[in-house]
Amino acid sequence: MDLAPAGTIADQGITQEELRLAARNHALPLETLRYDITPPGLHYLLIHYDIPAVDPASFQLEIGGAVERPMTLTLDDLKQRDRTAEPVTFECAGNGRALLEPRPQSQPWLTEAVGTAEWGGTPLAPLLAEAGPSGSAVEVLFSALDRGVEGDVPQAYERALPIAEAEHALLAHEMNGAPLPPQHGFPLRLVVPGWYGMQNVKWLTRITVLEERFEGYQNAVSYRLYGEDGEPGEPVTRMMPRSLMIPPGVPEFLTRERRLEPGPVTLRGRAWSGHGAIDRVDVSTDGGLTFDPAVLEPPVGPNAWRGWSFDWDAEPGEHELCSRATDGAGNTQPLEPPWNLKGFANNAVARVKVLVGT
Amino acid sequence: MDLAPAGTIADQGITQEELRLAARNHALPLETLRYDITPPGLHYLLIHYDIPAVDPASFQLEIGGAVERPMTLTLDDLKQRDRTAEPVTFECAGNGRALLEPRPQSQPWLTEAVGTAEWGGTPLAPLLAEAGPSGSAVEVLFSALDRGVEGDVPQAYERALPIAEAEHALLAHEMNGAPLPPQHGFPLRLVVPGWYGMQNVKWLTRITVLEERFEGYQNAVSYRLYGEDGEPGEPVTRMMPRSLMIPPGVPEFLTRERRLEPGPVTLRGRAWSGHGAIDRVDVSTDGGLTFDPAVLEPPVGPNAWRGWSFDWDAEPGEHELCSRATDGAGNTQPLEPPWNLKGFANNAVARVKVLVGT
Repeated sequence: MDLAPAGTIADQGITQEELRLAARNHALPLETLRYDITPPGLHYLLIHYDIPAVDPASFQLEIGGAVERPMTLTLDDLKQRDRTAEPVTFECAGNGRALLEPRPQSQPWLTEAVGTAEWGGTPLAPLLAEAGPSGSAVEVLFSALDRGVEGDVPQAYERALPIAEAEHALLAHEMNGAPLPPQHGFPLRLVVPGWYGMQNVKWLTRITVLEERFEGYQNAVSYRLYGEDGEPGEPVTRMMPRSLMIPPGVPEFLTRERRLEPGPVTLRGRAWSGHGAIDRVDVSTDGGLTFDPAVLEPPVGPNAWRGWSFDWDAEPGEHELCSRATDGAGNTQPLEPPWNLKGFANNAVARVKVLVGT
Repeated sequence: MDLAPAGTIADQGITQEELRLAARNHALPLETLRYDITPPGLHYLLIHYDIPAVDPASFQLEIGGAVERPMTLTLDDLKQRDRTAEPVTFECAGNGRALLEPRPQSQPWLTEAVGTAEWGGTPLAPLLAEAGPSGSAVEVLFSALDRGVEGDVPQAYERALPIAEAEHALLAHEMNGAPLPPQHGFPLRLVVPGWYGMQNVKWLTRITVLEERFEGYQNAVSYRLYGEDGEPGEPVTRMMPRSLMIPPGVPEFLTRERRLEPGPVTLRGRAWSGHGAIDRVDVSTDGGLTFDPAVLEPPVGPNAWRGWSFDWDAEPGEHELCSRATDGAGNTQPLEPPWNLKGFANNAVARVKVLVGT
């Protein structure tokens, strides 16, 4: 392609606007893939607007729309309901965007927009059943307290989900056994296992059952796999399989390239998919020319990443390490990035450069 | 200047290497200046190498060098000593680097490399006194567990401090009343109130009293105010005064420019200095042409930022808001960035663009 489509940038560095987004939207330092459960301050963050200040004492969750019995719940009401907790892996739909050429203009993620927390709260399904959704209900809309302007549209963040998928959602008021931190949606957020992160609506304040499909910004305009022709394409839904490696050795400060002693080393990492369990992970130590199978650990949970390891005899010289995950639905990470206009769901294999010294 | 000195980049966007650093090294989202004490996951992070995994059970702190009684302490030993806790404002010495032209190549901070935590632990001075420093002692070296390569030098992170300054330091094992998170130095870090963040050595494992000045990388090479001629210049020490504003209104997603309704609005922010108490903060709503005094709140602590507020009647149109802090030592934030080769201590007034609608 010779010309960058609108909204993308070819052949130039990251802009100051992109950098401003990267400063706010924290990535997971790759060495902290070592933790089964990511500490809250290391989990990735993607915040569309500002982190709102919410008073938990006056906070209310409304459930309404096409229901027989609209409800209003306080935070205490929610805490007194059945509690469940589960480790769930989240990944931003824009992960890998900054590695695309031409580069779509938005939060410039490299590969680290991921994390796994134990989310605790109350299941949505019983609440929805109590509210009594209309027999014609098709979607459930989740509306948040954070506000901004996006694509020239002033809006509160909100995302709709097919009603069948909403049955599996959690209303979370705890992260890793503690109240949600402000940046993770205090006091209440949605958790939809398996979906990309845009569906895990933070600062959730209203649930609306809909009898028609929602045509708001985040569903109809933003999170879609646009083609080069600018047509909206399919919506972004579940996470494609991806794997990441804990970079071995030690880093060079500026380049983050790795320096390693020669000899045996066990490479470790994580793999996940929203389309099914991870069936296999393969590792390449020659930049993706050849792959060999890694050893898989048990998943941290049914909806969480699983660890993998691979024994490597590091020989002196430069190497490019890659890992490639395959899920139970038969999806495998591609070697080359799948391009789309807004840069979603780029699950190409990550590459880690290593200099093995003598 | 026509040519960029070595290690700087003129006239081009942020490189992928800089972006990789920005992804790891989290900034404070500016709206969270609202918190007197920054929640741990929102506090800025600058991590030179990798976050190490430290086993607290086998962790030891050694105190040695030019002392009469070298000591080895476990984490429990440290916890059983006198405990003190204090809110301290930290700022990275490289804050503001990415706004310099030409731009020094390192972590590309805009303005948000700051945070205030309540650091709890045991004062260093009584421990040093028990160890009995030599009468010829001039500096104390603090060595950490994180390792990497920087400026072609393989190293563990370590920084020395004049012994008189070390008297005011804290050995912190708590942040905001909880054990240190991994990314903030678990299980033990140094806290030196008033100094730029490079002195608050994380993952601290060894304290060495020196009878000569330390000539290691982080003191002799890295943290210095290099001139254009490449001469090392003065060392980076205490924080210059700076103020930041909570951006009013709501953001546009991509540009982060603010949209605001016309009418009265109270602008709020924080100000701090390592050279003395903040005496005054002035605010400009015309891009720095004219300033008027803000109202100051009491400091959060003797070594922590203080809040300020300024009532503004926002008229329709585009505005550029600035705040300017002055400390008790007579230092005032400059309007134009003070340039040096490595981009340290750029405390120029920050600028917030606001579009006030009709």
